[in-house]
Amino acid sequence: MRLAVIPGDGIGPEVIAEALKVLGEVVPAAEITRYDLGAARWHATGELLPESVLGELRQHDAILLGAVGDPSVPSGILERGLLLRLRFELDHHVNLRPARLYPGVRSPIADPPEIDMVVVREGTEGPYAGNGGLLRKDTPHEIATEVSINTSFGVERVVRDAFARAAARPRRHLTLVHKTNVLTHAGSLWSRVVEEVSLQHPDVTVAYQHVDAATIHMVTDPGRYDVIVTDNLFGDILTDLAAAVTGGIGLAASGNLDVTRRNPSMFEPVHGSAPDIAGQGIADPTAAVLSVALLLDHLGEHEASRRIEASVAFDLATRDHQSPGATYAIGDRLAALVSSNVRTG
Amino acid sequence: MRLAVIPGDGIGPEVIAEALKVLGEVVPAAEITRYDLGAARWHATGELLPESVLGELRQHDAILLGAVGDPSVPSGILERGLLLRLRFELDHHVNLRPARLYPGVRSPIADPPEIDMVVVREGTEGPYAGNGGLLRKDTPHEIATEVSINTSFGVERVVRDAFARAAARPRRHLTLVHKTNVLTHAGSLWSRVVEEVSLQHPDVTVAYQHVDAATIHMVTDPGRYDVIVTDNLFGDILTDLAAAVTGGIGLAASGNLDVTRRNPSMFEPVHGSAPDIAGQGIADPTAAVLSVALLLDHLGEHEASRRIEASVAFDLATRDHQSPGATYAIGDRLAALVSSNVRTG
Ligand SMILES: CC(C)[C@H](C(=O)O)[C@@H](O)C(=O)O
Ligand SMILES: CC(C)[C@H](C(=O)O)[C@@H](O)C(=O)O
Repeated sequence: MRLAVIPGDGIGPEVIAEALKVLGEVVPAAEITRYDLGAARWHATGELLPESVLGELRQHDAILLGAVGDPSVPSGILERGLLLRLRFELDHHVNLRPARLYPGVRSPIADPPEIDMVVVREGTEGPYAGNGGLLRKDTPHEIATEVSINTSFGVERVVRDAFARAAARPRRHLTLVHKTNVLTHAGSLWSRVVEEVSLQHPDVTVAYQHVDAATIHMVTDPGRYDVIVTDNLFGDILTDLAAAVTGGIGLAASGNLDVTRRNPSMFEPVHGSAPDIAGQGIADPTAAVLSVALLLDHLGEHEASRRIEASVAFDLATRDHQSPGATYAIGDRLAALVSSNVRTG
Repeated sequence: MRLAVIPGDGIGPEVIAEALKVLGEVVPAAEITRYDLGAARWHATGELLPESVLGELRQHDAILLGAVGDPSVPSGILERGLLLRLRFELDHHVNLRPARLYPGVRSPIADPPEIDMVVVREGTEGPYAGNGGLLRKDTPHEIATEVSINTSFGVERVVRDAFARAAARPRRHLTLVHKTNVLTHAGSLWSRVVEEVSLQHPDVTVAYQHVDAATIHMVTDPGRYDVIVTDNLFGDILTDLAAAVTGGIGLAASGNLDVTRRNPSMFEPVHGSAPDIAGQGIADPTAAVLSVALLLDHLGEHEASRRIEASVAFDLATRDHQSPGATYAIGDRLAALVSSNVRTG
């Protein structure tokens, strides 16, 4: 197993160290290559993602990324030039974001129900396409545009993926989230594709919600969701909210998948570089560890993946959530649990 | 005072009846003209908003709207052809949406703090511009676009309005919500405008949050917000979430303002037509009543507005939230409170 690791900025390297500690327990033979992409490299060399590095990354089975972003770099440079560029160049069209309320974890919502959903967020088009511009900048007549681009090709492949996931889950329920009553063009395409693909999945129940209504149900009735399929921007928003409702982005893992497997998929915690707590050794590495579980599952190492997830579940059920421990201590605990081969559930 | 009333679809007419009952107590001389726009008219005549009606609406001091939308009408027809058309034709650039957690009201979040925010949502551009289209429809090569249009003119006027509101509130705090790290063109314009206008308001503290992060804080720390300024789509999403966190869209009022007063402003509950409960007489008219309070405030009837708001606050603090009563009963209660001139706070 050849893995590329991009620790990145802020707390990225801190949580990645623990994620690799845990990985070492289940796949000791994994070959790891580190890439120092991020704010420091940009400051030193002006480079974001050199072609040669991109070429090397392609030679790996998967990529593990910590976090990207730093206050010293103007907004958008690292995000568009590095993180989104990776997602687009490597055709990470399925941005997979599970949100589960683990036993023992406190939700900010009162009397939370069981929550166990997966958001399939489109990852390579929509409002993230980078299409748009500024006209008459810095004049009173300035115009800024952002073009959301949605293709039949791009929408269909994520909708198919979402249906397949829904069909494989016990509840077999899929919710399309969009804003079809306002974004009528993109909304029409998304709705038609969902309708067509649903014909091949008569066993999957399909629902639709406008994105604004979905944020309401995410706090009043999150247990209703099983699989959500949605566009790049709505998925960005909804998955942060889903993470909040299930205990915070300290626990939310994600996979950026090229489901065709032509390119390596990339796994990363949903949280960012958190510059406010970077360097203090207090970041929770759990989301990074769960991202390793997603990575292993993607590479067919299902048993190793389950062991990590079960260890995290056990730790969350038993940890003192007021003082869960330092970053390294949580990593040590999870590594020990994984190596002792704990099984729960 | 000449008011145009558009009861609209679903529960719209039900809640509007109660809103007018309450209005009758404070401004008995108000001249009311009803317009039967909505699903029924569209089915009967194909008309959404005839020019002649639009011309008549312009002759009023303000418009009160119930709700627009019906499952029998394809998604987008009524929304774009009637509701959004009104907002755009009447230049309702400031979409004002207060969210306050009233004493006695249960929030879905555990241990909620004091919440008292106002969202200033841009109302006439952004992703709502209606710009975009479909190419190669119903082929495997279909492309759907949606263009977000943001102008210096359009952004500046709502940012100015938001700063003025923030400056007049005790906390003097303003948060810009956007996604500047991805939507870099529109984000750049919004950020620069906020920066420029802030120079004229050194007394207002300015913060920035990405929209995804804002949804997290909306459930983990909603007390932090005072005034939020944001674009049309982010504002749509955030205000539904803010309404959920403060007890539900049954209580959320809004004003679509042309702050230049060239056109009548329009006031409406944030909730929709709720076809699932329409005709049963169980819809909560409180949001419609609070919309009347916003309307009166906008027309300079500050004392009448305060009386309505105080009556609502009193009712919410004392009502049985399990069974708040039928639509007409809540309206009766609020009308009685208003006429007995209750003052609280
Ligand atoms: C950092 C940013 C570009 C990114 C996104 O918007 O996708 C992040 O919010 C995420 O969700 O992974
Ligand atoms: C009905 C719809 C067009 C509308 C909007 O998106 O603005 C509604 O959600 C709102 O918030 O008033």
